[in-house]
Amino acid sequence: MSEQTARERIVPAEMARRCADAMWQDDCASQAMGMQVEEVAPRYARLSMPVRSDMLNGHANCHGGFIFTLADSSFAFACNWSNRLTVASSGTIEFLAPAREGDVLTATAEERSRAGRTGVYDAAITNQRGDLVALFRGRSYTVPGELIPGLELAES
Amino acid sequence: MSEQTARERIVPAEMARRCADAMWQDDCASQAMGMQVEEVAPRYARLSMPVRSDMLNGHANCHGGFIFTLADSSFAFACNWSNRLTVASSGTIEFLAPAREGDVLTATAEERSRAGRTGVYDAAITNQRGDLVALFRGRSYTVPGELIPGLELAES
Amino acid sequence: MSEQTARERIVPAEMARRCADAMWQDDCASQAMGMQVEEVAPRYARLSMPVRSDMLNGHANCHGGFIFTLADSSFAFACNWSNRLTVASSGTIEFLAPAREGDVLTATAEERSRAGRTGVYDAAITNQRGDLVALFRGRSYTVPGELIPGLELAES
Amino acid sequence: MSEQTARERIVPAEMARRCADAMWQDDCASQAMGMQVEEVAPRYARLSMPVRSDMLNGHANCHGGFIFTLADSSFAFACNWSNRLTVASSGTIEFLAPAREGDVLTATAEERSRAGRTGVYDAAITNQRGDLVALFRGRSYTVPGELIPGLELAES
Repeated sequence: MSEQTARERIVPAEMARRCADAMWQDDCASQAMGMQVEEVAPRYARLSMPVRSDMLNGHANCHGGFIFTLADSSFAFACNWSNRLTVASSGTIEFLAPAREGDVLTATAEERSRAGRTGVYDAAITNQRGDLVALFRGRSYTVPGELIPGLELAES
Repeated sequence: MSEQTARERIVPAEMARRCADAMWQDDCASQAMGMQVEEVAPRYARLSMPVRSDMLNGHANCHGGFIFTLADSSFAFACNWSNRLTVASSGTIEFLAPAREGDVLTATAEERSRAGRTGVYDAAITNQRGDLVALFRGRSYTVPGELIPGLELAES
Repeated sequence: MSEQTARERIVPAEMARRCADAMWQDDCASQAMGMQVEEVAPRYARLSMPVRSDMLNGHANCHGGFIFTLADSSFAFACNWSNRLTVASSGTIEFLAPAREGDVLTATAEERSRAGRTGVYDAAITNQRGDLVALFRGRSYTVPGELIPGLELAES
Repeated sequence: MSEQTARERIVPAEMARRCADAMWQDDCASQAMGMQVEEVAPRYARLSMPVRSDMLNGHANCHGGFIFTLADSSFAFACNWSNRLTVASSGTIEFLAPAREGDVLTATAEERSRAGRTGVYDAAITNQRGDLVALFRGRSYTVPGELIPGLELAES
């Protein structure tokens, strides 16, 4: 084996953290939205986002698209945790309560199913009072490639 | 009738234009995303958005949340055309092809059904080459209230 | 008050049971599919269905429509528990694993949200080995009317 | 080439017809529901189904699951037209109007997108008066295998 193909083996919790760091570094979109990665673990991610004045729509509520964006980011971190490059193939969101300027939204994403190349992830979006603002379900599709070349899960 | 309840009656095409103008004025979110309202008509809206560098995710593609946001805005303009205050109750998006920095996305939303308080709207999102980037379906819910107080449709 | 408007007040668990009994009696569809109501409670229902040979599609798997039908029935029992007439406005299903002839499917539905006239319910569909076969999410809409005239919840 | 690998090449319209015939023959579920294949073509299928008394739910309407089942069958015929074995990965249905006993429902499915292994198909479900009863969107996934071994599309 050449040095180029040397593999580093790490445990799941460490893998989730390193993949999240690698994704975050290049995720201009989530950064520009003011998101924070609050917690990551295998098959799990929790992100927060304060609602700014430039996020309000014509009804003076947080644009539903930005609530979706937060949920979609939490989904991305949850489904890319194992260093297998994974993209969203679709997503559905239920808008349950409006979010206002100054609210801090939290999206908590968890894996519900993963088999072969496809997965299903649920995210709940709550505000700072714990009220449910939206429910999200995303479908993932794993494509060839790694987020961090050479990194893989240690066999348990 | 008092002056407060004076009603102005206009034709549908004019109504769609005036409701879109009223919504756009307060829609900081769509403005901040660099969207343009390209065309509005009864039950129909077409909006465009160039993909900027601050819209890219960790995979160097336009964050799916912003594609959803564009679609959701086109849906909002299509379902609020008649001055009845209408919000999104849910939305589903299929991501079909990635969008890159510099692409100009167009979302074209059309009413598929409206009965009572609820409606279904479809939007197709294409890039500047006409490639289909995503398909969106939104469910709307009409709440009490008007976008422009006192404005209503002329009887045909 | 006249006799016609006499109201009977019962506790939630009893209400869920009586509404389920009333619905089941008239639900020819769920009966013809061989479903069983295994358990009902406020905001919750669990139904089972064996996969028969006349439920197989051209790929020799249980037709996805029948898996949806089981999930949709569990959703109907969960969202009609309180004697307020409630219908499905939409439903989404993720097919995760095939079901075969002789499998016994169980759908477990739970309320995730209810506000005003609308609600969101999730159902998980598993087989007799506990494998996840499908995930369902339904949106409900409450219309005027009662399942059992005159029956209402006792104030707690 | 051995006889086993002999390939027959046919034009698209013929392929759609032969794949539909092969699927229909084994589709006990669609047959038991009283469906009829009205028309098939590449990326397209139209099926009908009369609403029978054993299809009614506890609200005396056609069970939504059976409307989904009809839509799902039309989707299956539309996405398997080219002899590449294709299954549903998910489906979403919007229920717009009730269907009653004696109504004849028609589901018309069309391909909206297909790339690699995945596709998106839309179906509209109408009754005998042309009223829109439901809208369906399905996501397909192509797996290894052929419906009719050895049959392929002639190059155009």
